Amino acid sequence: MTPTDSTRFASQTVHVPLSERSYDISIGTGNLAEVGRWITSLRSVTHAVLISDDHVARHYLEPVSESLKSEGIRVTKLVVPAGEPSKSVATSQELWEKALADRVDRKSSVVALGGGVIGDLAGFIAATMTRGLDFFQIPTTLLAQVDSSVGGKVGINLPAAKNIVGCFWQPRGVLIDTAVLETLPKREYLSGLAEVVKYGVILDPEFFEYLEANVQPILDRDATVLQKIVARSCELKAQVVAEDERETTGLRAILNYGHTYCHALETVSGYGEYLHGEAVAVGMLCASRLGEKLGVFAPEATERQHKLLTALGLPVDVPKLDEAAILSAMQRDKKVEHGKLRFIVPHCIGKVVLTPDVPQDVAMQAWTDGYAS
Amino acid sequence: MTPTDSTRFASQTVHVPLSERSYDISIGTGNLAEVGRWITSLRSVTHAVLISDDHVARHYLEPVSESLKSEGIRVTKLVVPAGEPSKSVATSQELWEKALADRVDRKSSVVALGGGVIGDLAGFIAATMTRGLDFFQIPTTLLAQVDSSVGGKVGINLPAAKNIVGCFWQPRGVLIDTAVLETLPKREYLSGLAEVVKYGVILDPEFFEYLEANVQPILDRDATVLQKIVARSCELKAQVVAEDERETTGLRAILNYGHTYCHALETVSGYGEYLHGEAVAVGMLCASRLGEKLGVFAPEATERQHKLLTALGLPVDVPKLDEAAILSAMQRDKKVEHGKLRFIVPHCIGKVVLTPDVPQDVAMQAWTDGYAS
Repeated sequence: MTPTDSTRFASQTVHVPLSERSYDISIGTGNLAEVGRWITSLRSVTHAVLISDDHVARHYLEPVSESLKSEGIRVTKLVVPAGEPSKSVATSQELWEKALADRVDRKSSVVALGGGVIGDLAGFIAATMTRGLDFFQIPTTLLAQVDSSVGGKVGINLPAAKNIVGCFWQPRGVLIDTAVLETLPKREYLSGLAEVVKYGVILDPEFFEYLEANVQPILDRDATVLQKIVARSCELKAQVVAEDERETTGLRAILNYGHTYCHALETVSGYGEYLHGEAVAVGMLCASRLGEKLGVFAPEATERQHKLLTALGLPVDVPKLDEAAILSAMQRDKKVEHGKLRFIVPHCIGKVVLTPDVPQDVAMQAWTDGYAS
Repeated sequence: MTPTDSTRFASQTVHVPLSERSYDISIGTGNLAEVGRWITSLRSVTHAVLISDDHVARHYLEPVSESLKSEGIRVTKLVVPAGEPSKSVATSQELWEKALADRVDRKSSVVALGGGVIGDLAGFIAATMTRGLDFFQIPTTLLAQVDSSVGGKVGINLPAAKNIVGCFWQPRGVLIDTAVLETLPKREYLSGLAEVVKYGVILDPEFFEYLEANVQPILDRDATVLQKIVARSCELKAQVVAEDERETTGLRAILNYGHTYCHALETVSGYGEYLHGEAVAVGMLCASRLGEKLGVFAPEATERQHKLLTALGLPVDVPKLDEAAILSAMQRDKKVEHGKLRFIVPHCIGKVVLTPDVPQDVAMQAWTDGYAS
């Protein structure tokens, strides 16, 4: 194995410190073509199961596959339909069986090439195939670059709940090429910005101000600004994950700011109706209103988020859906402990608090108050 | 949480040292009825997903469930058909969905009550439900008591290969009641003895001699002898697992003595035709003959195993099956690295060696030489 020198493949490197599971995120522009040399600089890889979706595959499957092959790596290409429905038991079974049919073994690696769905699904395959394979991620959406590339959460959905089946499985390395964002559909790009805004709200008021001051270059996908927001988002998430890798101390739960509402919205509206970041935007504002109702957050701070999310083209209104179904979906949230609703509630821009025992009626008021007036 | 004092619930305790994943195996006679107090002595448990099969459930589901309930634990009882076919993706999906429907959350625990199939299946559910639940095992077959209760290997089968999907997931505690073995069908009891013999061959010549000298009390299921062989088997396996928890150094692979042939036999004959221990018995003798052919093992030592396994009522002859299918199944074994066959080959009673690059024709001769003459 050659010594690790992932800085060769990036303008910027974010280290994710997780003792023997530590790894680097290599962030660059145009570094996708170097994936073969990058991966062999990290591990001795001779067989890669390359998992992608049909949208991403159209642009990047062959360049990535060729780059891997040029390093002598045998590549098994597995392509699933784009979209959340692929994060299923049925698709997992298909991938397990196809990988096995193409002679996967314990020395094989899994490479995820795609957005969050592909990262979660391919990571689950890596975590469970022959009880665990080396895993590498190449996130191709803004959301996946700033969210899925740190944290080690992998998994699939059941019809009744998202991400309910899965593991913690850290990648050996993450390669981010911000140039791939140039071809990302506008709606998907904007969706990713919701998680970027989230990092500002939960951890970094200066970063939030930076976003407020740079709305136009962000919308223009300015290369310099893109590297900055991707790297800072990864850094912030890495800080949290390093202190609470398996979400046991409660610290890591702050990353779920807005997500209880978000998951309920996704579940009840039907997976795929809202993009994840869109649902996060709506969910963050619900959680902000909840903070107001609990007397810990100022209406002005909700207003700042509302204004920034609106400027970034994200949805802010709560849609009219069956309220009993929304409440029921929130009760199945993984943060629920023995039936009690828990929320991440903001206290100011830059600080949120895990708040247990939130009364159901207050939680639902913060939801219904978001209906378009 | 009350302090751990698992010795209260056992005549003998075997500690499995795995740093923060360490746990105790509590071995006793008639201690099954104390499972509620035992589990609450280890962890604060308020909801248990109790997984069993229809055979075991008939005798033990209610006593175990009642014991848990008497400690204030809510119990979700999930019973699957007995037998290897339940270690499937379809059954896993059913269990995930039923557990979710009965409000499983991250603080829930999974309790496996049954043999190896239930331990592997329930452990896989524990490893993957909400990304990992506390797991407790109550193995009810001799095979599960001496094998599945140490090691943390959990998983399911695909049609083309056994145990190919799974995780390493350590239990928080294992409760062994040797009294349940009294009602075990004879064939299943004898099957478990194959793994006991295996520990002697791979690690402990004195234990092997003890078995040779105690065939009749073993067949009579003498309580004292049972405790001795279960405890010693767990100790020996714990030693190995402690040094190579995730099978990365090669040391742990010695536990797979006989298992490459065994898995091929199980796959090609159809899951369920042979009990696992029966296939292990046949497989160990194949591996012994392989040792002879490679010039590292004496025919007399093969003969000692043959004699002991025969005395214990285990099958020793290789059945006539499609040889190409056997070879192909061995090539899909998880010990295979990039197409090369690797075997655990005995050098003497008490010592085995992981041997790479075994030629296919020699491996197959060791198989065909075992046909009944």
